[in-house]
Amino acid sequence: MSDPLIPRTPSAYDYPLLIKNLLFCPVVDNPDQEIVYRDLYRGTYRGLRERVRRLASVLTGLGVKPGDTVAVMDWDSHRYLELFFAVPMIGAVLHTINVRLSPEQILYTIDHAEDDLLLVNSEFLPILEQIRGRLDAVQGYVLLTDEAKAPETAIPFLGEYEALLAAAAPEFEFPDFDENTRATTFYTTGTTGMPKGVYFSHRQLVLHSFGVMTALSTAVGHGTFRRTDVYMPITPMFHVHAWGMPYVASMLGVKQVYPGRYVPDQLLELIEREKVTFSHCVPTILHMLLKHPHAERIDLSGWKVIIGGAAMSRTLCLEALRRGIDVFTGYGMSETCPILSLSHLTPEMLELSPEEQATIRCKTGQALPLVDLRVAGGELRELPRDGVSSGEIVVRAPWLTQGYLKDHKASERLWDGGYLHTGDVAVRDGLGYVRITDRTKDVIKVAGEWVSSLELEDIFAHHPAVAEVAVIGQPDEKWGERPLALVVAKPGEAGRVTEKELVHHVREYADKGVVSKQVVLARVRLVEAIDKTSVGKTNKVALREKYL
Amino acid sequence: MSDPLIPRTPSAYDYPLLIKNLLFCPVVDNPDQEIVYRDLYRGTYRGLRERVRRLASVLTGLGVKPGDTVAVMDWDSHRYLELFFAVPMIGAVLHTINVRLSPEQILYTIDHAEDDLLLVNSEFLPILEQIRGRLDAVQGYVLLTDEAKAPETAIPFLGEYEALLAAAAPEFEFPDFDENTRATTFYTTGTTGMPKGVYFSHRQLVLHSFGVMTALSTAVGHGTFRRTDVYMPITPMFHVHAWGMPYVASMLGVKQVYPGRYVPDQLLELIEREKVTFSHCVPTILHMLLKHPHAERIDLSGWKVIIGGAAMSRTLCLEALRRGIDVFTGYGMSETCPILSLSHLTPEMLELSPEEQATIRCKTGQALPLVDLRVAGGELRELPRDGVSSGEIVVRAPWLTQGYLKDHKASERLWDGGYLHTGDVAVRDGLGYVRITDRTKDVIKVAGEWVSSLELEDIFAHHPAVAEVAVIGQPDEKWGERPLALVVAKPGEAGRVTEKELVHHVREYADKGVVSKQVVLARVRLVEAIDKTSVGKTNKVALREKYL
Repeated sequence: MSDPLIPRTPSAYDYPLLIKNLLFCPVVDNPDQEIVYRDLYRGTYRGLRERVRRLASVLTGLGVKPGDTVAVMDWDSHRYLELFFAVPMIGAVLHTINVRLSPEQILYTIDHAEDDLLLVNSEFLPILEQIRGRLDAVQGYVLLTDEAKAPETAIPFLGEYEALLAAAAPEFEFPDFDENTRATTFYTTGTTGMPKGVYFSHRQLVLHSFGVMTALSTAVGHGTFRRTDVYMPITPMFHVHAWGMPYVASMLGVKQVYPGRYVPDQLLELIEREKVTFSHCVPTILHMLLKHPHAERIDLSGWKVIIGGAAMSRTLCLEALRRGIDVFTGYGMSETCPILSLSHLTPEMLELSPEEQATIRCKTGQALPLVDLRVAGGELRELPRDGVSSGEIVVRAPWLTQGYLKDHKASERLWDGGYLHTGDVAVRDGLGYVRITDRTKDVIKVAGEWVSSLELEDIFAHHPAVAEVAVIGQPDEKWGERPLALVVAKPGEAGRVTEKELVHHVREYADKGVVSKQVVLARVRLVEAIDKTSVGKTNKVALREKYL
Repeated sequence: MSDPLIPRTPSAYDYPLLIKNLLFCPVVDNPDQEIVYRDLYRGTYRGLRERVRRLASVLTGLGVKPGDTVAVMDWDSHRYLELFFAVPMIGAVLHTINVRLSPEQILYTIDHAEDDLLLVNSEFLPILEQIRGRLDAVQGYVLLTDEAKAPETAIPFLGEYEALLAAAAPEFEFPDFDENTRATTFYTTGTTGMPKGVYFSHRQLVLHSFGVMTALSTAVGHGTFRRTDVYMPITPMFHVHAWGMPYVASMLGVKQVYPGRYVPDQLLELIEREKVTFSHCVPTILHMLLKHPHAERIDLSGWKVIIGGAAMSRTLCLEALRRGIDVFTGYGMSETCPILSLSHLTPEMLELSPEEQATIRCKTGQALPLVDLRVAGGELRELPRDGVSSGEIVVRAPWLTQGYLKDHKASERLWDGGYLHTGDVAVRDGLGYVRITDRTKDVIKVAGEWVSSLELEDIFAHHPAVAEVAVIGQPDEKWGERPLALVVAKPGEAGRVTEKELVHHVREYADKGVVSKQVVLARVRLVEAIDKTSVGKTNKVALREKYL
């Protein structure tokens, strides 16, 4: 048997991983299970499948071909869910437009993605009207609306979504094709420059769904997503396909609730009325919900919520736990489909106090199955899982963007050395729990190992004589870099505390093993004041110019 | 964007689905979690990984190259688990030899699979010695043994497994390669002819693991397999890789217990001592365990067991339920990796009586996610899910064998029309539960629809005047076939009951909708006796010769 490789000629037994399989071969196939959109739509999975077929008839009827790009501007709705399926299932690419971008940025992304057809919620007509004169490539427009009356607009819509669906053929045979066919694209918003496009294939979205599903459903005692749950997203469908969770919910076959735009009292009402048990959201939205006057009237206990997008604070975590909400962290980014890790607790950890649990629930978490997540040192080798060794999170997984659309340079930087670079610096413990400590730009590379400037600042701040501190990296011939701590002493301590004493203080932490040994290489310089930016943050750029 | 296809050039972001990822990127990565083999070995996942690396060093050191075939004869052991990983992970094919075959059949499969290296448990030396003179292709032999003393044998072993591992390099870098690379092969035993080889790729085994894992872990209230379970297989590792479950358990990261050969009191002792919570077995083994005198002394409640390989009887199901064992059906075959469906109950169904639950637990079950399972009518179109329409189960899934090794004709028959044909005839209800009623060879095709001869016989047998009945298919110009029921009347009824009355009896069942309407085309012929085979079964071959 000299050649174990199977020929790749497509055959009957060649079963590509396609998004249609999530819809047609789910875990639970209950045609009567509900799909709800606010007070405006109450359908079933049977209805979803028929509407997806009708939608495919509409799209192909409007001339959409495999490889074309169909863009959407909508709030979270059953329509969006239908587009999540129908567009990729006909071989086209779904561009989920970030409606929170400026009109100029939206124009840029529509142009850059080369959108062929645009489906727009009537709420966004003012934006569209503003940019339409400059949209060259778009071939046609379809109106999405929750209003009975057609809006007044100069845009020559090809039709309104519901009317088109009603008139379309209810049958559509979805073909098989290469699982590596692009399914979705959307744009990330960096702090500088124009948004960058990322993209995902059918295979990637299917495997992401199974990776996430497996991590969530195997959990014991909390943080579970299973057949009897009721799902409602509270991160937008235009952003990383609502963390891919509508696909996960659909393949599971559970009741789904779509809330439109995020109006706190409407969200709370939906959670209560539709008995929502599983959601995902960013810390600010959860905070907003918990602070809303209606929140105390509603029993939120048992509601499971993945928190991501930004670090969950202990305060928010504890407040949620007090309300009986099962919050835990999910980690990822636009480039990673997005979920890479989840911070589930073991049954033993669930016996801990809320304060102790919060420490774990706020961690970055454990990598999903199939995710080769490394806290990496030199040559991207994995660092010891000792809770102390600190390095950048780099990752391989079956669901990472291949790069940025039409941006070869940025793509190469993203994938430097064969791993996707997250730019996050973390430590990891013996059970695989990752905890992000910094962004790479805030760390100092000492003797080939990362030292967290934020962590080191925290240690200095614990010294009773220290009023303020900033740590920057000082180039060093022997060590590459050494940390330089710029310390402002407390009023009474100035002239009394010595640099040597502060170095000794740091050394004690290293001896206890709570930080990496490299911190002992820190130098200290007592200064009068620390430069700030216009918004009051430490200005490390200015400090580097001044002291290096 | 005219070309949505992503080039298939392997790149950093190309993440093949390889068996190594199940071992190295599991759901729970707890290095201290246990792997147990009887009383003979108690290791950890840390140990498993190191031993898999050492084993890879051993195998490559012995000259095993990618594409070679490594065969194993062993009972279920930690060694077998290590081989499940190490052999495919170096790019070789694992041939799991069915040790229950006759020596001649074993010889045939070793020759047919072109095995290069053979690892043999000392218990099977008598078989090996018997056939060794005729094993041309095998390049070398490795001894597996649980004994301290080397056995006396003329076979020139290259070494003993543990000694080789101890001497091998503990480091091994497992390469990436095409996920369609063949990983395993083994032989199915039909009723006629020599065993037929089936084969599975890395991709197929990984996707099977995720499909099974998702179905099991999302279940609510019973039949679950999750992070805190303890796993022990009771279907052999040489047969369809113990239903692929050792891969599922390893990717989940749970404690695993391997029982060697299946000795009832040893199995019971392991279940009790190691706190086993999840297993899979065939009805006869479960029956044997429950009948064992030790069984009543052991608390088996909460033990979850997938029953497959043969239909679970209501009696066995009810007896297991009485003991608190959570039994449910798994369906599949050697050709399908194997699992295609599982018969989980909804929380509402769990409220039913044991008798009512047994009906569901004994069903073939609901298709796993990604499994396009059809109860098919003409042109392989799916029949209505009405619990009555009857057709052959045909299937597409990402984990089906491409065919039989070196048997093109049988492979074409298996995949006729682009679906794998199971040869099982079934009905399906509105919630997707499949129930097998026959093998295809026992059904009659009336007007393009399957009619179950067994089911029809059952209906006739319910008539008070019927002593015995056999149904065969009678060729018919208009309908293709019509059922012909050969009926022996009860002594007192002979000469009184009419053929017309019996036809009417069947019609009533059809009118109630409990069987397909085609049964009304049945003809009845009263006969004196029904021909039997030598073992007392209805001889349909003889009946066809006599009455058609």
